[in-house]
Amino acid sequence: MQDDLNQIAEEAKELLSEKKYAKLYGIIKEMMPADIALLFEELPIEDVTLLFRLLPKTLAADTFVEMDSEQQKKLITAFSDSELKAVIDELYVDDTVDIIEEMPANVVRRMIQYVSPEMRKSINEILQYPADSAGSIMTVEFVDLSREMTIDQAFDHIRENGYDKETIYTCYVIDRNRKLQGVVSVQQLLLCSRNMTVGDLMEENVVFCRTTDDKEDVAQTLNKYGFLALPVVDNEDRLVGIVTFDDAIDVLTEEATEDMEKMAAILPSEKTYLKTGVFATWKQRIPWLLLLMISATFTGKIITSAEDALSRYVVLTAFIPMLMDTGGNAGGQSSVTIIRGLSLGEISFSDWLSVLWKEIRVSLLCGLTLAAANFVKILVVDQVAVQVAAVVCITLVAVVFIAKIVGCLLPILAKRIGFDPAVMASPFITTIVDALALAVYFRVATLLLS
Amino acid sequence: MQDDLNQIAEEAKELLSEKKYAKLYGIIKEMMPADIALLFEELPIEDVTLLFRLLPKTLAADTFVEMDSEQQKKLITAFSDSELKAVIDELYVDDTVDIIEEMPANVVRRMIQYVSPEMRKSINEILQYPADSAGSIMTVEFVDLSREMTIDQAFDHIRENGYDKETIYTCYVIDRNRKLQGVVSVQQLLLCSRNMTVGDLMEENVVFCRTTDDKEDVAQTLNKYGFLALPVVDNEDRLVGIVTFDDAIDVLTEEATEDMEKMAAILPSEKTYLKTGVFATWKQRIPWLLLLMISATFTGKIITSAEDALSRYVVLTAFIPMLMDTGGNAGGQSSVTIIRGLSLGEISFSDWLSVLWKEIRVSLLCGLTLAAANFVKILVVDQVAVQVAAVVCITLVAVVFIAKIVGCLLPILAKRIGFDPAVMASPFITTIVDALALAVYFRVATLLLS
Repeated sequence: MQDDLNQIAEEAKELLSEKKYAKLYGIIKEMMPADIALLFEELPIEDVTLLFRLLPKTLAADTFVEMDSEQQKKLITAFSDSELKAVIDELYVDDTVDIIEEMPANVVRRMIQYVSPEMRKSINEILQYPADSAGSIMTVEFVDLSREMTIDQAFDHIRENGYDKETIYTCYVIDRNRKLQGVVSVQQLLLCSRNMTVGDLMEENVVFCRTTDDKEDVAQTLNKYGFLALPVVDNEDRLVGIVTFDDAIDVLTEEATEDMEKMAAILPSEKTYLKTGVFATWKQRIPWLLLLMISATFTGKIITSAEDALSRYVVLTAFIPMLMDTGGNAGGQSSVTIIRGLSLGEISFSDWLSVLWKEIRVSLLCGLTLAAANFVKILVVDQVAVQVAAVVCITLVAVVFIAKIVGCLLPILAKRIGFDPAVMASPFITTIVDALALAVYFRVATLLLS
Repeated sequence: MQDDLNQIAEEAKELLSEKKYAKLYGIIKEMMPADIALLFEELPIEDVTLLFRLLPKTLAADTFVEMDSEQQKKLITAFSDSELKAVIDELYVDDTVDIIEEMPANVVRRMIQYVSPEMRKSINEILQYPADSAGSIMTVEFVDLSREMTIDQAFDHIRENGYDKETIYTCYVIDRNRKLQGVVSVQQLLLCSRNMTVGDLMEENVVFCRTTDDKEDVAQTLNKYGFLALPVVDNEDRLVGIVTFDDAIDVLTEEATEDMEKMAAILPSEKTYLKTGVFATWKQRIPWLLLLMISATFTGKIITSAEDALSRYVVLTAFIPMLMDTGGNAGGQSSVTIIRGLSLGEISFSDWLSVLWKEIRVSLLCGLTLAAANFVKILVVDQVAVQVAAVVCITLVAVVFIAKIVGCLLPILAKRIGFDPAVMASPFITTIVDALALAVYFRVATLLLS
């Protein structure tokens, strides 16, 4: 896919240099909006503006939505007033909101002029919802029916109002106070017998969410039930919008990326890697690096405090990296598993005891396996005294045990006290486990070797 | 949600003990299949079988699909032949395949008896596709139209054939050789003027995938374009099935989980954490732990080889953990970012140079920041000789640099040579970086301190 696009981009640049616009237009108008947007990223803005003017209204708007905010900004600035109006008229409210949120104040002011009063009202409403709420990702353009409607009336209503709706396939039945009564799908409407009313047909126990619900939970719910869309109600139970499956997919993907970044001690960013500047990337990475570096120096303290033991048995130093790494890895395995389980809702706080009990058994199994393998290896390869081998292997079991307990408990605890579990991942765990590992190591050493 | 279910589970157990089946049925029949399945997991199998018999046919089948394979197996064994047939009749082909793939041979044999001949044919076809292919997740139940149809004929066709289709909203236009001609949505059909034909209305340049395409790419494509479903064609370009958005969401979620597991040096598993046995979990975790432990011992070798330097400047040992951890963290940051970018298709091999150039600059920025902070800290807090501080800080810059270069290049390289980039994450990087870090450390030390 990516490579095809690079090809097309090359071809496009050539055609542009030869001013063969008609031919280029012929290629572009067959492409999907998302691909056109990707293609435009490869081209200079003046060519983009030119090509954009060639596109039919709807395709132009769909493409505009797919572009990244940088390009959108440039285009808006390049647009004439009438061009800007034409694009905005074609946009869905939720897309317009997404764009407005990314634009600088002056651009927003210019856009708002061309937004119809009703649309402006809904935009302002959506903009008021907190960033991670269902309200912030919902679309306000949906089909609503009333229970008295006959099937034919329902279809007439859908035909009249369906044009500018993001989905018409799930219709929501509301009363005159806009309270959510039920839900009915176009599939049901198409397949049922003509003499029924919407009220007869509709499903009355509707799964819905509130404008204030966390958008990740909403996406999970929609995914769990395989819905096309989930209705969103305000605190007076009035239907104010819907969250559609495509927005849910985006939320789930973004959340997964964010978790991975946090697990890797990176502050999450909105932009993709290649679009993030060097300083922005530095800002994402340096805080945790600094924090973890400082805390790691405490591990150093433990070594210094054990100087005399080390100076007597310098060989002990040789096993420090192995013990630290194994601890970090063992802890990371547990924490990442638990963190993912938590964010997928497969694990909840109430499971903490069964999780702990399981990690205890797994950690002992892993620890003993590693110790056994290591014991043989030390005696055969390193050929050091049996006591030293014993010290290392006993420590190994202890380290893996500690690592996995810390690794499974910290995320659950974090979740419980309202922290983000993802932060309790490998790097953080490693720092803690390292210190404990060395403490145990030298303790065991002084016990067995003196 | 989870907590509500626990409540309902308690109530259900009570009602069961009091044999108040009617009341319990009243509660259950209002619930969503996915929730009923979760509830059933909490109940003893004999009660589940009993309740299952109470459910209406369709709801029973939908619930059955949502259950985990263990419960499905138990239920099938408990079913009478007629009950089994009733459930299977209601299942979609792709769901049946998913179930069959999880069942032991004897259960499969029993199930297959009640599968209609046509269904058996499609099942066998789907079972032949490789596990990660589009063919393995596609559904063969879709609505196909021919271009000659009028809008009304199209609707009649949809009404006749729509009952047992997973989605009717995207219809596919094929010729008499079943070659894919175009695609038309029910929305278009509803909103267009009655006197058109399907041919006039359909979108001719259809985005499709092949049965052999990787299911993750297919899911990405479907997500990229926000489609409800993506058509799947065989190697003669005949339409054989469709992949629906809900399956795509599952694929994307599973792939993200798999990547996280691999990044944490865990062998991925199909089952959720709580459903995986202790030994299974051990099997997932021990291979990498062993491998990384062995390789970490080489880092130990480097320390032993530097024994004399260490015995002269024991203080050097104190900074080993900090240098190792920082290296691991810095490398992990880069690798995880790149790996995610690769799997989301935001980064491709052709970007390797811009990635490298960016990581070089970021790594120097990070390295210098850390070195500066550390230099002050060492002089103020640790109060060691300036030369030692210099050694540590110079090493620090070098380590962060090496870590980030290794961290960004290895995943891209892995992808290029057809390996899974996710394996090239933190633990693996850490082990390499640790060795390099210490090598540099002692080299710099011997240069500056002697």
